[in-house]
Parts: sequence; structure tokens; C-alpha cells
Amino acid sequence: MSLGRKQDAMTLDERQEKLCSDSQWDFSGLKALFLNCTLKKSPDRSHTKGLIDLSKAIMERNKVSVDVIRVIDHPVATGVYPDMTEHGWDEDAWPEIFKKVHAADILVLGSPIWLGERSSVCTQVIERLYAQSGQTNDQGQYVYYGRVGGCLITGNEDGVKHCAMGILYALQHIGYTIPPQADAGWIGEIGPGASYLDEGSGGPENEFTNRNTTFMTWNLMHMALKLKETQGIPAHGNQRSKWDAGCRSDLPNPEHR
Amino acid sequence: MSLGRKQDAMTLDERQEKLCSDSQWDFSGLKALFLNCTLKKSPDRSHTKGLIDLSKAIMERNKVSVDVIRVIDHPVATGVYPDMTEHGWDEDAWPEIFKKVHAADILVLGSPIWLGERSSVCTQVIERLYAQSGQTNDQGQYVYYGRVGGCLITGNEDGVKHCAMGILYALQHIGYTIPPQADAGWIGEIGPGASYLDEGSGGPENEFTNRNTTFMTWNLMHMALKLKETQGIPAHGNQRSKWDAGCRSDLPNPEHR
Amino acid sequence: MSLGRKQDAMTLDERQEKLCSDSQWDFSGLKALFLNCTLKKSPDRSHTKGLIDLSKAIMERNKVSVDVIRVIDHPVATGVYPDMTEHGWDEDAWPEIFKKVHAADILVLGSPIWLGERSSVCTQVIERLYAQSGQTNDQGQYVYYGRVGGCLITGNEDGVKHCAMGILYALQHIGYTIPPQADAGWIGEIGPGASYLDEGSGGPENEFTNRNTTFMTWNLMHMALKLKETQGIPAHGNQRSKWDAGCRSDLPNPEHR
Amino acid sequence: MSLGRKQDAMTLDERQEKLCSDSQWDFSGLKALFLNCTLKKSPDRSHTKGLIDLSKAIMERNKVSVDVIRVIDHPVATGVYPDMTEHGWDEDAWPEIFKKVHAADILVLGSPIWLGERSSVCTQVIERLYAQSGQTNDQGQYVYYGRVGGCLITGNEDGVKHCAMGILYALQHIGYTIPPQADAGWIGEIGPGASYLDEGSGGPENEFTNRNTTFMTWNLMHMALKLKETQGIPAHGNQRSKWDAGCRSDLPNPEHR
Repeated sequence: MSLGRKQDAMTLDERQEKLCSDSQWDFSGLKALFLNCTLKKSPDRSHTKGLIDLSKAIMERNKVSVDVIRVIDHPVATGVYPDMTEHGWDEDAWPEIFKKVHAADILVLGSPIWLGERSSVCTQVIERLYAQSGQTNDQGQYVYYGRVGGCLITGNEDGVKHCAMGILYALQHIGYTIPPQADAGWIGEIGPGASYLDEGSGGPENEFTNRNTTFMTWNLMHMALKLKETQGIPAHGNQRSKWDAGCRSDLPNPEHR
Repeated sequence: MSLGRKQDAMTLDERQEKLCSDSQWDFSGLKALFLNCTLKKSPDRSHTKGLIDLSKAIMERNKVSVDVIRVIDHPVATGVYPDMTEHGWDEDAWPEIFKKVHAADILVLGSPIWLGERSSVCTQVIERLYAQSGQTNDQGQYVYYGRVGGCLITGNEDGVKHCAMGILYALQHIGYTIPPQADAGWIGEIGPGASYLDEGSGGPENEFTNRNTTFMTWNLMHMALKLKETQGIPAHGNQRSKWDAGCRSDLPNPEHR
Repeated sequence: MSLGRKQDAMTLDERQEKLCSDSQWDFSGLKALFLNCTLKKSPDRSHTKGLIDLSKAIMERNKVSVDVIRVIDHPVATGVYPDMTEHGWDEDAWPEIFKKVHAADILVLGSPIWLGERSSVCTQVIERLYAQSGQTNDQGQYVYYGRVGGCLITGNEDGVKHCAMGILYALQHIGYTIPPQADAGWIGEIGPGASYLDEGSGGPENEFTNRNTTFMTWNLMHMALKLKETQGIPAHGNQRSKWDAGCRSDLPNPEHR
Repeated sequence: MSLGRKQDAMTLDERQEKLCSDSQWDFSGLKALFLNCTLKKSPDRSHTKGLIDLSKAIMERNKVSVDVIRVIDHPVATGVYPDMTEHGWDEDAWPEIFKKVHAADILVLGSPIWLGERSSVCTQVIERLYAQSGQTNDQGQYVYYGRVGGCLITGNEDGVKHCAMGILYALQHIGYTIPPQADAGWIGEIGPGASYLDEGSGGPENEFTNRNTTFMTWNLMHMALKLKETQGIPAHGNQRSKWDAGCRSDLPNPEHR
């Protein structure tokens, strides 16, 4: 008997399957968005997609509505304003993507590792998320309040935790709640070797990665549901609109607009 | 009219005071622990204590039971086991400190910045917290589940966010929930200059630091109360005891015990 | 008497000027390249350019041949191959930029800080530099051997050292030598405020930033000259071509090609 | 034929041995110091020592005089002053260790990884190194000028590059020169598993780790010799004593003393 997950990312292993069948929670009202920050355009194989598919499958088995966007396939502009076509760019796919970010209860950033760091696409996405962090909801809290965030990292060498540190930091800083153990990832032994979806990588069968991805996924669902059922983070002591920091509205830093 | 906080860290400014008076929440059942990871033994002045005092004052005005431990004043041993007297150390104050960590709904690590990094004492504390991360609660979740974490950083130059990234990452990784905007800090302009509590530093009056510390404190209280009232993180999909990862119990890495 | 540098970045202060006049070194054979990784397209003001201009002015007073490229003004593709037009991109300005990188004895990456991190453009540049790291010189060393690297960071809040850590790490990892104190930067007091070139920011007059930028610039020139005069890093014990690591040439990770 | 290194760390593999026999360089005047920052006191097995032994063996085959200190075996105090017995500590082994640091042309910090970060002992050591960074040599440069630095990292999971980033950054910031590829390390596949010296870990036979450790070691020796033969970093443009930054001598930050 093998408990390992098969190469087909859609197949849950026994334990992952049993957790879904035994669940007494109703997550059917939740929406999740995965932003895959691979550097590779379709149709190249994205290993990060491989790991995203596992978390996505668990969510879908629990009736969460899931969307995945491979960012590099879209003409997302670079900058720190909500719509860069107003700042010299010919086109910008971000405003459309942001609608999905805004609609999602759960946001997961997926990134590969290059030279020990998250991808430039991942940083570009965070810059764009940050651009909207000066916006507030109808209670005057930052717009991302009441949502939960996590991350998935793949590489063939080293750097899962370092990438996760920066990503989870950014998400909580702009308003997301980070539930316990909200990161998971896979890397092989140090040095040259197979990537996650490569045959024989050991990635899809890796106990640690499977456990962490499973725990992350459930914790994201639990916390998103809890926040939804309890009206988010109470709006007191954290309302930007009620705290006058004397900000100049023309500052490029969105926190200070 | 000045909105700035006075040097006496116990004095809330007008807005901070009003938030407390207007609050409709009852946080009186909550316990918070601040671990001050300054490198300076008492009675030397700890600037990190200065910022901790602000967050502590807000919590106490809301009837949270607050404890502060200046770690370097206690003979905490170095290592990754729960009690280092079983591993060659003559004494170890950690087991007593851990009792307070375990009793606390809210844990805030306070650290100074040296050369852009959190203090060695802060890393030592995280190593000790991690040592207990293999322990589980009565539902088989990691022992830190159901608690919330944050951090406060002071320096005179640079590095608040970098320190916060590592600290918040560690806390969520071992089971803490990180509410929105769970970090705050103060640094002066780059280069030589006054530290937080030094006269004329501008620290205690800094709008940004005061706002972030206030938001952090309220978010920690809100999330801690929410987790307490709703029985923590639902125990399904995240129970270490039900997931057999074939760990060797003799491994030094606590996650794998 | 003010020792502060004026807003015009081309004007050295007294001490910086005197160091140039008194110099007995001949750096006239050296070439330097600054890659400005601002997120803002021309003609928007780049504060990072402001600090680059200071280091550039010192080098030019010493007859170093200096080039500055504002990367975002060029259609640089994203990915980890030397020429992305061979991997699905319509255009790619990188191969032309790389010629200048290859010709330069000194490479300085300049980056703004957003949410505590270097810009996505800076990461994109490092990914492209890394793409060529599998190439070797005529002695079988990585192609960047014998060159020196540094970085300049500007922001209005926090993160100079964190950004520098990642950038200098990447540069040494691919073969650059890092001389002492090879980073400099400027940030204001934590929170909202002026950026480097904004009137009244205090940036151009900041003693610490001016000293560090001066020291960095001289150390880059000294080490570049030393390496040039002494035929670089001796080719023994570090020749990739003589060390067979059994790499698969089709791996995406350039170190393993 | 196996090219792998045997468990006995003193045994070089064929290629490492050949590089030593074929060398035309005379490194016999150089001194190197390895500071092992393991959390484990002797006689517990330190895996970091295992990797240090490899680099040490290469150096010794080249007649470099090598010393290794296991820091945790000594009563090193915590703080940012050169001698902490003047600041409330009963004993402090650092002043003796610093004599060896000062005498060494090459300094290598070895650290294990815990929760993705370098050890608290490693941070403690860097704080102590930093404490002396305000001292200058007889030419007014920071005291560490003219020396070279590197690092070796071991763990069983993830984080080599993140740890190396911070360590190499600190070393260059206080005055060390970082030659190309000055870091090496080993980790196994993500998750639970053997540590470097454990039987069957694959560590001592790992091609990538062996190559990187070999390259690092040779580059440290080459650069140290070059600096020694060419009188270090020319003292112009980088002399702290000639640059009056108006520092207050009573500041805790050593750079500003």
C-alpha cells in the first residue's frame, strides 16, 4: 500500500480523500484564487501548477469555488498604481485580475524559486496588490481585511521558507489573515535535479509536502469560513478612515495615500 | 493640540484612549505575553520595552491580562529541546517561560535590530518555541493552534520589515494565527541617531508607528477573542496525530519527532 | 560651512571632491554599469537615479567609463534563458543589455524598496543575469569572475539592508567579487515621508548615506583595478569546465546546464 | 569508480586531491578561522563540523594554518560591546576568540539551519563581530579590511541561501571581501530526513555540495593571498578616521561610535 499521491495532481491520496469524505464543514460559499507566478508562459510545464493542483483539488472536493490564473500569460503592467494604463502603459491586465482577488475569500500565491528568491512575477503581483492597499472597505478597514492568505513554493534546490517569509509577510501587512501553517512547498536535495512534476522527482509522493499542503488548505478553508460567518475582523481599532495620519494623497507609497 | 504620545509609554494619545473608551468588546478573559528580546540586561534601558509598553497599555485598558518577560535577564539555555538541562546545560529558565507562553492567548515577540537582523536572543527564543512544536493539543493539533502572534521591532536605522518577516513566519509555521497588520516598529532616518526612547528621537510621537502599533494590538485582541469564542481552529485536516508521516522520534528537528 | 551635497546629484561635496583630487590611482581603464531597477518609466522621476548619480559622479571624476541603463524603459523579457525570443517572447532587450554587463568591470544594481523588498524589475534582472551564469570564460570559470559588484537602494521607509542582502548574495553567487562595504542606501524615518530627491527629504545631505556611497564607490574601483591588474581570480579550484557534476544540459536551472 | 567523498571528512575525493597536488600557489602564510555556530555542545555530533572539515582539509593540504572554534563550548556573552564583562556579564570568552578573528586572513562562519534561519549562536557571533566594527586599522579603515569571508551551512530541509545571504551581507558590511561563490551548504530533500553526517544522508557524496565547497575554499585562499600580496584594500576613499560623520561616541551602534 502506498500513501503517495500519483503524478496526476488531481488525484488525492487516501488520507487526503478521507479527510474530504469525513468533513462536516460546508465550504460551498467560499471562493479561492490561486495566482501562479511561474516565469514560464503556457504551454510550458509549470511545476508550481503541479503543487497548486493538489491544494485546488482538496478545495474543490469541499465545494470551494476555485480559480487559477497564470499571471505571465496576461499583459500585467509593472508599477504601484491600480491601473497602469493611467501611468504610461499601453495595456494592463491587472484591473481584471484584481476583480477576482477582491471577490476571493482565499488568496494563494504560488511561486517558483530562482537563486533562492521568489520569482519576479510574484514580486510584481505583490506590488500590484500593494497598490490597492490604500483602498478601504465600507467600514474603513484596508480592503483585504476579512480574507485569508497562503502560499505554495516549488523549486529544485533551496528556498521555500525564505520565499514564504516574504510572501506571507506582504499578505498580512496589507490586511490578509494568515492561519496556522499557511505555507507549503517542495524542493529536492540540494543541487541539480528533477523538478516537482518531473518523473522520479519524488515530489508528488513527498510526505512532508503532502502533509503541509493538506494542512495549509484546510486551515485556509477553516479560517475563511470562520471570518465569513463572524463578519470578518471587527471594525474597531483598525479603521484607516478614522485614523488621520496626515498623509499626503500624492505619495507613491499606497499606504500613505 | 498634539496627538503625539508622551515619552511615558503608559500614556495613550487621544485617539488610542478614545478607542479604548468606545470599545464594546470584552477582552477581559484574554492573556497576553510579550517576550522582550533586547540584548541589554536590566537595568539598562531597553528601547524595545518602550514600544512594548504602548501595546501593553492598550491591552490593559481593555482588561487583557498582560505579562512581559525580558528574556536576557533569565538563564535561558540554547538548543532545540524543551528542557536543555536534560541535554548538558546546568540551568534553563525556558520551561518556566514556556508555561506562560502556553497560557497566553496572544504572544508578541519584541526585538531590537542589529546589522539589519533580529537579535540573537529573539532567534534563541524562536528555537525554543520550535522545540515544543512537535507537541500537540488534545485534538492532535500543534500545541500553538488557537493562539495569535505578532511582533514589535525597534532600531535606529533599518530593518523592521525584514525582522518581522522572519518572526511572523516562524510563529505561523508553528501554529499561531497571524491577524492583519500584526507587526509594528520604529526606526529613525538611516544612519546614526537617537533610539526610540531617547529624547528628541521622534519615536513616541511617530504617527505611523503609533497607528501600526494600535492596529496590531486591536487585531491581536479581536482575533484572540474570536478564536476563543469559536473554539479555535477546527480540528480537521490539520491533526498531526492523525497523519502518519513515518517520522523518526529521535530526530533533532522537532517537527519530525 | 555645509558639508552636505546639494540636490544636484552631480555635485560632489567637499570631502568627496578632495578624495578625487588627491587620488593617486588611475582608474581610467575601468568600465562601470549601473542598472537602475526603478518601477517608473521615463520621464518620471526616479529617486534611485538620484543616488546612482552620486556614485557615478565619483567614478567619472576618476575617469571610469560609466553607463546607466533604466531597465524598465527597455522591453526586457521575463525568464531564465539568455534570449527569451527563443522561448516564446516577441522581443527581448536583454541580449543587448548583457553585452554591456559583460563589458563592465563594475556592476551596480540600483533598486527602490516596495513593501520592504527590492523591485520586481531588480529580481527580473537578477533572473536574467543568472540565466547566463552557466556560461564560462576562456579559463572555464563562470563568466562573471574577475568583476566586482555592489548595490544602491532607496526608499522612504525601511528595507535597505534586506534588499542589499539578496542582491549582493546573488552577485557573489554567480561570480562577482564583493569588496568591503559594497552597499549604500537612503531611507527616511519610518512611515510616510519624502523620497530621496524630494525637497527637504534630507537624503542628499545625509552623512551616513554619503559616506557609505563614497566608500562603496572607492572600494568598487580599488577592487576592480586590483582584479584587472592581477588577472582576476586565479583559475584553479574554481573551473566549472574541469569539474564534471554530471549535469543534464536541458535543465532550466542555469547552474546545472 | 566513485568520485564521492567518504564519510571521513578528512578524505578528499579524487578531484579535490588532484587540485591540491597540481597547485602552483603557496598559501603557507595564510591563517584561516572557522567559527562553528552549531547549537550543540561537545561531544554531541555537529553536522556543520562535518562540512567544515572538508573545507579545512583542502586548506590544510595547501599549508594554510587553520583553527576551528565551536563557539557554544565557550562562555561567550551576548551584546554589542567588545568585552561584555564591562557591561554586567560575569565572564566573556569573546575577547580571546576575537584575537583569533583578528589574526585570521580568512573567516568562515558555519551554521546549522533551524526553522529556515541561521542559528542564534551565529547571530550572537555576528553581533560580537559588529561590536568591533567601529575599530580601525592603522590606516583608518575598518579593522576587518583586507580579510576575506565565507560561510558553510548545513540542515536537513531548507534555507542554505537565506542563511548565506545574511551572513555574507554582515561580513562585507563590516569590511570583509567576499570572493566569488563564497558560500556552500547541504540540505536533503524537503521534510524529515538524515542530517549531513548521518549514514545514508547522501551529504558527503553530494556533487553540488562538494563542488561548491571546493570552489569556495579555493576562492577564499586565492583572494586572501591576493589581498596579502597587494597590501589589502588601498586606503583611500574608505578611511573612517578621515571622514567625520559627527558621530556621538556613546551610541550603542558600533558603526556610530
